[in-house]
Formats: sequence, structure tokens, C-alpha cells
Amino acid sequence: MYRAAEDAYGPLAMAFLKLVSSGGKRLRPTLVVLSSKFYQNPDLDKLIAMGAAVETLHTATLIHDDLIDEATMRRGFPTLTALWKDKGMIVLAGDYVFARSAALAAETNNIRIVRMFADTLMTICDGELRQGLSQNRWDQPKESYYRRIYAKTASLFTLATQSGAILSRAPEEGIQALERYGRYLGMAFQSMDDILDFIGDEKKLGKPVGNDLREGVVTLPAYYYIHQDPANEKEVTRILSITGEERNTAVAELVKRVAESDAIDAAYKEAVEMVQKAKEALGVLPDNIYRDALLELADYSVAREV
Amino acid sequence: MYRAAEDAYGPLAMAFLKLVSSGGKRLRPTLVVLSSKFYQNPDLDKLIAMGAAVETLHTATLIHDDLIDEATMRRGFPTLTALWKDKGMIVLAGDYVFARSAALAAETNNIRIVRMFADTLMTICDGELRQGLSQNRWDQPKESYYRRIYAKTASLFTLATQSGAILSRAPEEGIQALERYGRYLGMAFQSMDDILDFIGDEKKLGKPVGNDLREGVVTLPAYYYIHQDPANEKEVTRILSITGEERNTAVAELVKRVAESDAIDAAYKEAVEMVQKAKEALGVLPDNIYRDALLELADYSVAREV
Repeated sequence: MYRAAEDAYGPLAMAFLKLVSSGGKRLRPTLVVLSSKFYQNPDLDKLIAMGAAVETLHTATLIHDDLIDEATMRRGFPTLTALWKDKGMIVLAGDYVFARSAALAAETNNIRIVRMFADTLMTICDGELRQGLSQNRWDQPKESYYRRIYAKTASLFTLATQSGAILSRAPEEGIQALERYGRYLGMAFQSMDDILDFIGDEKKLGKPVGNDLREGVVTLPAYYYIHQDPANEKEVTRILSITGEERNTAVAELVKRVAESDAIDAAYKEAVEMVQKAKEALGVLPDNIYRDALLELADYSVAREV
Repeated sequence: MYRAAEDAYGPLAMAFLKLVSSGGKRLRPTLVVLSSKFYQNPDLDKLIAMGAAVETLHTATLIHDDLIDEATMRRGFPTLTALWKDKGMIVLAGDYVFARSAALAAETNNIRIVRMFADTLMTICDGELRQGLSQNRWDQPKESYYRRIYAKTASLFTLATQSGAILSRAPEEGIQALERYGRYLGMAFQSMDDILDFIGDEKKLGKPVGNDLREGVVTLPAYYYIHQDPANEKEVTRILSITGEERNTAVAELVKRVAESDAIDAAYKEAVEMVQKAKEALGVLPDNIYRDALLELADYSVAREV
């Protein structure tokens, strides 16, 4: 007897449920909610829809990222890419989750937020495309790195903070302050992620270290390592061109050398400067417990466990 | 010297330009414009943005479809899948075009249209997922086929007609009539596409015939062929399980047998019935040259060159 496609959705539903329930910090919805606490009380249904929209958008990007990077582990669980043989279905699953996030954003009934949402989605894709196009370009300027992490991470943070502000009918000054906070917080957060990719604990990260370097993605620690000594760029290029069995060991040793170099401190110092800028942006907001929470969140972004 | 990622966008821009300029019937923007001609004059900027939104959304789905189907030709030109080695970049290029289409829809500043847009995007992905999950299920009921083609094609047609109606401040009755027209036109159009996949001319189609059958996608002609004779389902299953060199010849012969069978007439009869329903839906609209154009368009959908 024909088993309707609906039943076949079982594995799809299970996979999403796993991804959603597998933890993650729920940082983006938290930003939406905290950013809505400075002016008028927002409509709660709209606020929740927007919180769900940013988290769902984040989930959609993870589905396609894991497919593109052939990543098999995420938050300590197997990815869809590890579970499903049919890669086309993963493209479509990601598309579906993108669509769902857009529908959630539209539930705010706020056209300004919807426009921001669509622009953010473009910016994120643009950042991922840039990352793909700049792989193994060890000579790229630091600005290219910052541009990419703004697009990849900070743009969604600013969508979260700005939409929270807009839903609480914040004045333009308040919206701009929260935009600035979200932007620097996102950049600090991603810089720290990129540092942890070198010095983190695999168990706590839920994924192997050294991923970025292995894939030829230039991050802040790699940037500083290369600029410490002219010999380092040649070394990196040589090791990443190794194929076959020796590759894994050689890359692991290089990751260790970067992790033990001054590059980590230099990158960390920049992340801390961005945290400072994020906190300064909050100065114009009313002083309340939610502002304290945002200040703490900024400090937390660079104080995460390694 | 480092060549910025911006310059590397050259190939991406060229690929899009090629896709956009490679023809296509521009049917969906035409539906937006014609559907806006029955009530108040719409804001032209918004109308154009919406026309661009539906065509851009269509383009995005083609990019991911061609990747998933490993299609190398589209409208007589090589697809991105044929041109780019890096499949991850094609996923991202499709995502970017999805995002662009959402941004264009948001330019209407109309939250009802934006919500419809997001829902349509979900419906399209849902239809594609169902198509993937129902491949090679030759025992599926006809309703499954109609559900899939509504999702895959007709849902975007109804987005086009309804958004045109809404932008012209049509009364609900007018919006519903144009929704019904778009729905039946889209179903007739896709049914005809599925018929042409068996009986079309490869040069005029710009792609090889028999694609659906080869991929195990059950369309209306295949449905009727299988239900003509109990032996046919076994034959189809047997031929599609052939691997190696013999496969191409065996599938081509099967495509020919379906094309010469009564299944084509039976499928065509249903497509014509849907055209009739589409035309009837226009009865409540003001009688003008745009209504005549929509009537002609309905007839054209099943009278396309084979």
C-alpha cells in the first residue's frame, strides 16, 4: 500500500527536533527579548515570533553550512549531513527552514523588520560566498576578515537587537545604540569562536578543533600567525597542500603551533576591544536590569570556556 | 597582490546574468502585472518590485533544482551545476537569490503580500521535499501528483496573481478569483510541462526528454501509463532498476512507449479541464483587454509547441 509522503516526513521532523533540542545558547532570541526591554512593552506574540525567526534563520544557515563543509558533528550530535545520504534533500530541508524563518519574521506584521530580515539574509549569504571565494588566500587584509564575520555572524545579531528595539517602539537613537551593540557583540563573539577553533576543548566544542585552518578559512589567529614571521605564510601554504595520510598529523601540529603562538593573544586583545565598544554603545539606554544583562552578555562572549 | 573577493564576484555575476538573460517566458511577472489591471491603478514601483520578486524566486528554485537533479542544461544553456565545480557555492548562490527575492517582495511595503511570499516559499520547498520522498513510488494516488504540482508550480502562480490583485486594491472577491485562476493555470501549465517531458522536442525544450521518468518522478502521463495495464508498473520498475550501459537505451524506449500510448491523451484531457476552470474563475472580473489576455494565456498554457 502506498505510504503517503506525510509519513515519510518522520525522519525530517525527527532531524529538526534533534537539531533544535540539541542545545545551542539561544543567544539570538535572548538578544531580541533583552533589546525590547527599554521603552514600551512590546506585543508578546510578535516578540516571540521574532525570537523564533532569528533562531530559525540561524538553524537554516547551520544546515547548509554543515552540508557545504561536510561537517559530521554539531553541538555534539551528528549533523543532517552525517545522517542523510541524499544531499539534495538537505539543500531542500535548509531552504524549508529559511522559508519558515521568513514566515515567522512576517508574523511581526512590521514591514521595517521584514525588510531588515531579507537584507540580513542577503548579507549572510554574501558573507558565506566571500568566505568560499577567499579560501586559502593567506594574503588577504584584516578588513576582509572583519567584513566576512560581520556578514556571517554580526548581521544576524544586529537584526536581533534592532528588531527587539523596534517592537518596543524605541526612538531612533535607541535602535541605533542596540544596532551598534549587536554589531560589536557579534564580531567579538565570532572572533572568540575563531580563537576557540584553535585553543578549544573538542568535547566542550562538540566538534573537532582546527576546522577553519584545515578548510583554508583565514581567521584572526591565522592572520596574526602569518604576519608574525614571513616564513609562516609559506609554512601554512606548504602544510595545507599536503595530501594523503600525512595531512591530518601535519595540520594538527600546525594548529598546535598557532594555538601556542602570540597570535592568540593578539586576536583575543581585539575581541576584548570589540566587547568594550559593544558595552559603550549601551550608554544611551535607560539603566535597568536588562542593560546589566546585556553588559554581562558582552563580557561573557569573550570569557567562554575553552 | 591580494585580489579582493569583490573582483571574484565576476563569475557569479556573469552566471546570474546568463540565467536571467537566457530567456524564459517571464510568465510570473506577466501574471503580476495583468492581475493588477482590474481595480485601482497600483503604485508602479511596487508592482515592478513584485514582478521581479516572483521571477527571482523562480530563478532561485531553478538554481537549487538543477543542483539537486544534476541538470547540465537549462533553456539551452549550461546550468551553474555544469559550470561550477564547487557545489557548496551553488547552494549559497541559490540562497542568495532566495534572499534577494524576499527583499524585493518586502519592497511592496505590504505585509499581507510578504506573508504570502513566505508561505509560498515554504509550500514550494515542501513540494520539492515531497517529490524527493515519493520518487519511484509508482503506486501513489493521483492526488499526490496534484498536491506536488500545486506546491511546486501553482503556488507561485497564485502568489503572482494575488499580489497583483492586492496591489490594485481589489475586493476580496477579485483576489479570490485571481487566486483560483492562478491555481488552475499553474496546475495546467505544470501538467503540460510534464507531458512535454515525454513528447517534446529536445531542441525546443532546451533539455533532454524523459528526465522525470529517468529520475523516478511520477507525473500524470506516467500515472496513466501505469494504470492502463497491470503489466506496465512492473515494466517501469524493471527498466528503471537497470544499471550500466543498457539503462539509457531502455529508458529512452520506455519514454517512447509512454509518448505513443493513450496516457498522453488522458493527461492532456485533464490539463484542458484545468484551463477551463482557470478561465471560468475570471468570470467575476471586469471585462477588459487584460481579462482577454489572461484568457488567451490560459489557452496558450496547453497549446505550447511540442
